[in-house]
Amino acid sequence: MTRISPDDVHAAARRLAGVAHRTPVLRSRTLDERVGATVLLKAEGYQRTGSFKFRGAFNRISAIPQADTARGVVAWSSGNHAQAVALAAALRGAPATIVMPEDAPASKVAATQGYGAEIVRYDRYHEDREEVGRKLVAEQGLTDVPPYDHPLIMAGQGTAALELVQEAGRLDVLLVCVGGGGLIAGCATAVKGLHPDTRVIGVEPAAGDDVKRSLEAGERVRIPIPRTIADGQQVDVPGALTFPVIRDLVDEIRLATDSQIVDAMRFLFERMKVVAEPSGACALAALLADPEPFGGLRVGVTLSGANVGVDRFVELLGPDPP
Amino acid sequence: MTRISPDDVHAAARRLAGVAHRTPVLRSRTLDERVGATVLLKAEGYQRTGSFKFRGAFNRISAIPQADTARGVVAWSSGNHAQAVALAAALRGAPATIVMPEDAPASKVAATQGYGAEIVRYDRYHEDREEVGRKLVAEQGLTDVPPYDHPLIMAGQGTAALELVQEAGRLDVLLVCVGGGGLIAGCATAVKGLHPDTRVIGVEPAAGDDVKRSLEAGERVRIPIPRTIADGQQVDVPGALTFPVIRDLVDEIRLATDSQIVDAMRFLFERMKVVAEPSGACALAALLADPEPFGGLRVGVTLSGANVGVDRFVELLGPDPP
Repeated sequence: MTRISPDDVHAAARRLAGVAHRTPVLRSRTLDERVGATVLLKAEGYQRTGSFKFRGAFNRISAIPQADTARGVVAWSSGNHAQAVALAAALRGAPATIVMPEDAPASKVAATQGYGAEIVRYDRYHEDREEVGRKLVAEQGLTDVPPYDHPLIMAGQGTAALELVQEAGRLDVLLVCVGGGGLIAGCATAVKGLHPDTRVIGVEPAAGDDVKRSLEAGERVRIPIPRTIADGQQVDVPGALTFPVIRDLVDEIRLATDSQIVDAMRFLFERMKVVAEPSGACALAALLADPEPFGGLRVGVTLSGANVGVDRFVELLGPDPP
Repeated sequence: MTRISPDDVHAAARRLAGVAHRTPVLRSRTLDERVGATVLLKAEGYQRTGSFKFRGAFNRISAIPQADTARGVVAWSSGNHAQAVALAAALRGAPATIVMPEDAPASKVAATQGYGAEIVRYDRYHEDREEVGRKLVAEQGLTDVPPYDHPLIMAGQGTAALELVQEAGRLDVLLVCVGGGGLIAGCATAVKGLHPDTRVIGVEPAAGDDVKRSLEAGERVRIPIPRTIADGQQVDVPGALTFPVIRDLVDEIRLATDSQIVDAMRFLFERMKVVAEPSGACALAALLADPEPFGGLRVGVTLSGANVGVDRFVELLGPDPP
């Protein structure tokens, strides 16, 4: 039984106290007027390493027995999870190995190395990254830190919603972006534990609607790797452990197109002076694109991350978008 | 006698309580490591209307006698001061008239109208904007709200530094961007009133060094309107009232080039997920470009505003900068 409980999220919050940032809850009169609701943005871009991923990574790594901690941890990721694991491991005194493709962006490699992690490269045309990682687990006794499919990862991510409700009070609705499902599984568990009648809505990129399809099918459905600017949500199938939680607790899935995501990034930049990466703006994008069902409600929204370089931002929002 | 005292800043803080935002003081490990100091950023981009200007405008307008308030206020500006006056007037129930050139950007006109102000256009090739404004003062009995050269404006702007020191404690140095000088006059008054040994350093765009030259000359020196991306600091001469305060209280003027300002905007975006307009990043730019004198110190820095649209940001930071 790997379903998580609200108590697991509270336990994670205790482990993260004084280590993770309590990220700000942002408000905007302009946003409230535009949506016709009271909107509360949980700004995880201001979390350590620039996304919510630090919460789960630290929660998982701090539960590893001492002897295993000394041998180290491994993760396979070239995204936000890589930096989160690198920093969380460093804070726990665990050597971290991150498996990244040979052609990973230099900036992501440098950021991850900057937290003290060792990078192991693989050829993504001829090798499987999970296989490379599993070999390190088997041969060197490293502990793997999966990006979402683990009870401690889910529980850690849920602390974002717990903090939001502790600070802002009861919500009518919570909108959460969905990639592998770790964030929404934890957040739904936390929020429903406090207020069972709060609706939890997941938001996927329109091109990557694997969770929506899976809920409709009643089982995990695999889709082709989605083409979307929301690189944190390029997931082809819901997690084996996150899916049952989502099926039980999430009320609805909405979709946001790439152009709606860009609109939300622009709104955040110009009206709220806040940087969001595409996946970070995905949940807000769905709200801005179709605010009508939310009129008059108290709506929580996760802004999940802000790791977008200026050059990529210019590509996405400049005069010649991709 | 129009010199302001620390008491004037405290009085302004009382008027602004519950009306202006207490903007956040931002920290960054990366920034501290790069500068080799403890750096505390006062993020006025999160002030109402997106810049510190709201502080002075509200302080000034709330001191206008009731009968004059009902007749209304006037300001000549197409920048941050215009929006600040428009909102402050609306909150005090004063009709606001803003004099703007016929070719002012539509976005600035719309933002100012959005706060309920009436826009009066003038032809900037054939008319003088101050003359247009003064005529409204004379004929309609409007009260003018100058952008910096007024004791209540200076005192209001000084509340930014007062809040910074109240929250962060004593500073060794405070770096403040300088345009007309209202912000630095108020901030220097506030900070020196609390800690006379805190050094206050003004930062001008390299192309617009009128305050630096004036201090060297011992009197106000007029320069050609500077060509710089820092449009909030395109001022050709220090204010008649701000200059004596700067001369008495400011320890040093530093300069930042346009390319240093762009570097600081990029740093804020990528490492701190914060939007700054060029003038807003000017003080930080000088610190990043020459951190050596600040090693080991507690350094406060004003980020004065964040009113830059995505399109302008892309122009400035994209592959083909102006």
